[in-house]
Amino acid sequence: MRFNFVTLFPEKIESYFSTGIPGKARERGIVQINAVHLRDFAGNKHHKVDDTIYGGGPGMLLQVGPVFRALESLGEEKGEVILLSPSGALFNQDLAREIYASNQAITLVSGYYEGVDHRVTEHLVDREVAIGNYVISSGDLASLVVADCISRLVPGFLGKQESLVEESHNEEDQLEYPQFTKPFEFNGWTVPDVLVNGNHEEIRKWREKNRKKRNHP
Amino acid sequence: MRFNFVTLFPEKIESYFSTGIPGKARERGIVQINAVHLRDFAGNKHHKVDDTIYGGGPGMLLQVGPVFRALESLGEEKGEVILLSPSGALFNQDLAREIYASNQAITLVSGYYEGVDHRVTEHLVDREVAIGNYVISSGDLASLVVADCISRLVPGFLGKQESLVEESHNEEDQLEYPQFTKPFEFNGWTVPDVLVNGNHEEIRKWREKNRKKRNHP
Repeated sequence: MRFNFVTLFPEKIESYFSTGIPGKARERGIVQINAVHLRDFAGNKHHKVDDTIYGGGPGMLLQVGPVFRALESLGEEKGEVILLSPSGALFNQDLAREIYASNQAITLVSGYYEGVDHRVTEHLVDREVAIGNYVISSGDLASLVVADCISRLVPGFLGKQESLVEESHNEEDQLEYPQFTKPFEFNGWTVPDVLVNGNHEEIRKWREKNRKKRNHP
Repeated sequence: MRFNFVTLFPEKIESYFSTGIPGKARERGIVQINAVHLRDFAGNKHHKVDDTIYGGGPGMLLQVGPVFRALESLGEEKGEVILLSPSGALFNQDLAREIYASNQAITLVSGYYEGVDHRVTEHLVDREVAIGNYVISSGDLASLVVADCISRLVPGFLGKQESLVEESHNEEDQLEYPQFTKPFEFNGWTVPDVLVNGNHEEIRKWREKNRKKRNHP
């Protein structure tokens, strides 16, 4: 799967996909990462991409021209275009599956400043998405969250062992129970005996009893 | 305000707080960023920080020891300790304000692998937070989202002009209307005439009519 990022900070995107699980998945060719620098499409010698708001108001907006030209430059490889903005539909695991199922490439457009010229939303993007009910200083982290979450759905992203983990996430329907690893005792805190006794039926019962919903709807 | 990060990827944290608004705020001393590398506290020569799950199950868990020692190393500067995990309370703007109001320092502990030894949750953290109803490959992006959102509340974070923007976010209670910037015409798409006529009462009415709720609760 291919992820294009239209961003003012390509180095933040590159850094995230350089190490850890995302970095390894990129190395192995499971995901393709392409960060397009908005300033390269500013169309003026100062590489300015923002201006004041028509009708008044504080702050600046990202202009439509640079976004238009950045998207044009991607040609056939553009795929679905998603704008990250606090006005968007709330992103969740179902939306991730839906986007993954219908695309081989997506382009994530990061919002900046006070926001984005409305003509971007109206004419250039297929979908507007927010990662939560909070305000952050740009859409870059939101783009990375969406790309990471969808990447996890690509077979092979997590490697061999971790792919089992992904399956268990699905099976459990976002329910989970307390989990423990070695050492058995640390700082006087021990693992519940039932988990080390090797009685699988008792372990199953203990986990069932201690399950809780992973998150709030 | 001071943000400590307990992480396996300090370079991702550093990269995010090197450029843009977060980078400038750090340079000006508005926020202090301190990324602590979990592997430095592994306590073994292979710098291993994960192990298999007691009672069985796929994947690995982050061990309690490295987290305990990483937190100890922070001493007085630790502040409130927040674990980023999909089981946590859903982060939102109100929670950001609450955490900001009661702390001068916070420490964000990133989850990895299949999760974190439950003794971390039980004994070492003050709060468990999730940034949304989706699964991502580590808690690093979540830590950055929480730090960025809370940083925005620190006076001076956004600089002079943008601090007005922040105020407007608060005033509007997450309502917003379509906004436009120059040029007036692009690719045949024009700005609504009312916004360029200079009649403030008409502009106010147009914006009122075109407001929409910024997000879903």
